[in-house]
Amino acid sequence: MNNRIKKCVSQIRSQKLDAFILSNPVNITYLSNFRNADGYLLITSQEELFYFTSFIYEYEAKAQHIWTVVPSRGNLFKSISEVIKKLNLRNVGFEAKNIGFLEYEKIKQSLSDKEINLSQTVNFIEKLRAVKSRDEIALIKKAAVITEEALSFVEQIYDRAMTEKDLSIEIERFLRIKGENSVAFPTIVAYGKNSALPHHEPEGVLNTKDGFTLIDLGAKYCEYCADLTRVFTWGKIPILFKKVYDIVRKAQSISIKRIKDGVRASDVDKMAREFIGQKGFGKYFGHGLGHGVGLNVHENPYLNPRSDEILKEGMVITIEPAIYLQGKFGIRIEDMVLVKKDKGEILSGNFDK
Amino acid sequence: MNNRIKKCVSQIRSQKLDAFILSNPVNITYLSNFRNADGYLLITSQEELFYFTSFIYEYEAKAQHIWTVVPSRGNLFKSISEVIKKLNLRNVGFEAKNIGFLEYEKIKQSLSDKEINLSQTVNFIEKLRAVKSRDEIALIKKAAVITEEALSFVEQIYDRAMTEKDLSIEIERFLRIKGENSVAFPTIVAYGKNSALPHHEPEGVLNTKDGFTLIDLGAKYCEYCADLTRVFTWGKIPILFKKVYDIVRKAQSISIKRIKDGVRASDVDKMAREFIGQKGFGKYFGHGLGHGVGLNVHENPYLNPRSDEILKEGMVITIEPAIYLQGKFGIRIEDMVLVKKDKGEILSGNFDK
Repeated sequence: MNNRIKKCVSQIRSQKLDAFILSNPVNITYLSNFRNADGYLLITSQEELFYFTSFIYEYEAKAQHIWTVVPSRGNLFKSISEVIKKLNLRNVGFEAKNIGFLEYEKIKQSLSDKEINLSQTVNFIEKLRAVKSRDEIALIKKAAVITEEALSFVEQIYDRAMTEKDLSIEIERFLRIKGENSVAFPTIVAYGKNSALPHHEPEGVLNTKDGFTLIDLGAKYCEYCADLTRVFTWGKIPILFKKVYDIVRKAQSISIKRIKDGVRASDVDKMAREFIGQKGFGKYFGHGLGHGVGLNVHENPYLNPRSDEILKEGMVITIEPAIYLQGKFGIRIEDMVLVKKDKGEILSGNFDK
Repeated sequence: MNNRIKKCVSQIRSQKLDAFILSNPVNITYLSNFRNADGYLLITSQEELFYFTSFIYEYEAKAQHIWTVVPSRGNLFKSISEVIKKLNLRNVGFEAKNIGFLEYEKIKQSLSDKEINLSQTVNFIEKLRAVKSRDEIALIKKAAVITEEALSFVEQIYDRAMTEKDLSIEIERFLRIKGENSVAFPTIVAYGKNSALPHHEPEGVLNTKDGFTLIDLGAKYCEYCADLTRVFTWGKIPILFKKVYDIVRKAQSISIKRIKDGVRASDVDKMAREFIGQKGFGKYFGHGLGHGVGLNVHENPYLNPRSDEILKEGMVITIEPAIYLQGKFGIRIEDMVLVKKDKGEILSGNFDK
């Protein structure tokens, strides 16, 4: 049994559960190292593991040897409830955030036993995932390096004849060649005023003569994600653009200085938010300051005014203040930061901003 | 109000609902033509539309003019329940398959009114989506053509020095250049015995001297998906391979002949399954024969032994029988077929198999 499964079992016991059902595919990958795409994992307080999946993944799942694979030809939920009944499990935790309403109902109905209690949990495994090991940090750093190399590549290949879509295709090809076969998330390439749309999807449009381009991109490396944003400029830049750019950069720098073990995520968010507010742009920064990065590109902890999370040594987070002026431009500067005992270490500090 | 929304409203009325909450992003896109990534849509029996989303998508959503956008800074569920209460809606349908357990609980809790009934529905919009209009069929055909062009492209560029991953990267670049910025699903490139893993993820491996390669790929065009699979061979091919290939091809051909308006999806599945069974390979074909294709690459109707769906004129489905011999090879041949009044029309018949 690996260390992560041990921690999970110890949580199952401390929360007085007999077992825990995982439905979040990334949580299953975290515990098993199996690239789970479609399956459920049941872990009991007695350290037994059962993996429920369909014909499609059966053979690959069986090669893992860490669990008993229960293949299903049709009703997966029946298989789950049969194992729960057979083992006489009474109190079974489930992932309330990552199970569909209908899936929950189907498991509940298959159990058809009022003695069995399904117990809601939130962030049961996500909390473990938020603090990274040394090995995980090394993989995230490698993903960040590849992502920075992709930004240098953009400087080399960008040409006025390339549309947003053209450029995003070449960026993702680069990220995949040097990193993993998939990317951390669909690359955002936003020319000119499209940069004011936080999650703009690249289109077949060309850039104007003078201009700016927002690029938000991330490689994956051994399943771990990176997430960086830069705004490129050339030609004549409006004075307002320069002013706003400096505010966003300063907001990022003062919030990064606040990072260390034990600080509230909401306090780090506040540093950037108050600064941008004081400069008169508060209402143009409507999303959180950042989020954890790991096996998912967005994961705990979340940095926003409503967050109740505390930063801990070993967390990797993004810091991405922004100002969006609709119809004009948007500026978002995003770096990845490792939380250390008494400071934040920027993992993506090699590319100018 | 467009035709699709009209149909939805008429279903809301006929099912005695006051309103319907959509949480499935693709269903929202279907009704609104808005590329929805993160939001909820409430449609009332009085033809009012409310779209709930975060700051990230607020500006783009407001440009749609078909709904009232209710932006949320934090608690989206509170916003939804406030509108439900304000309009005095009593019986509100929701998408049981496409809402998370916790999201459902949050809406339920925000309502905090026992007079309001949340009513489970399954496939409320998916049933409408299953039958395609002439315009939709044209877009799917175009996606299929691009996908076939990508298969010709593979024949042109394939080289022994390319790993599965290399080839998948070039295929997706091609699909994106000619189609939409995203692909229908991650491309499967499986060399040799990897072809026996139905959803194999491309790796950094090279092909052997003689061999076969399974490629499962699909372009997107104006949001509509294609889905095709071919097995390429070269060099000396084992006799068993040829035998199995012919069985799969024959199974596909006889099941396609069964397709017409009014036939049970399970009957079409049965044609291929029984034929493969008679040849002695039944247990090596463990997944369904096919599925609908449209805005999603997998959608209703589903063709498998447990399906209770009936094929209707205008549906577009895949037919993909397969035989997987672990440790040796797998063969899957997949085409897209349009259901017509008295036959099935193959939409992807230009590429040899």
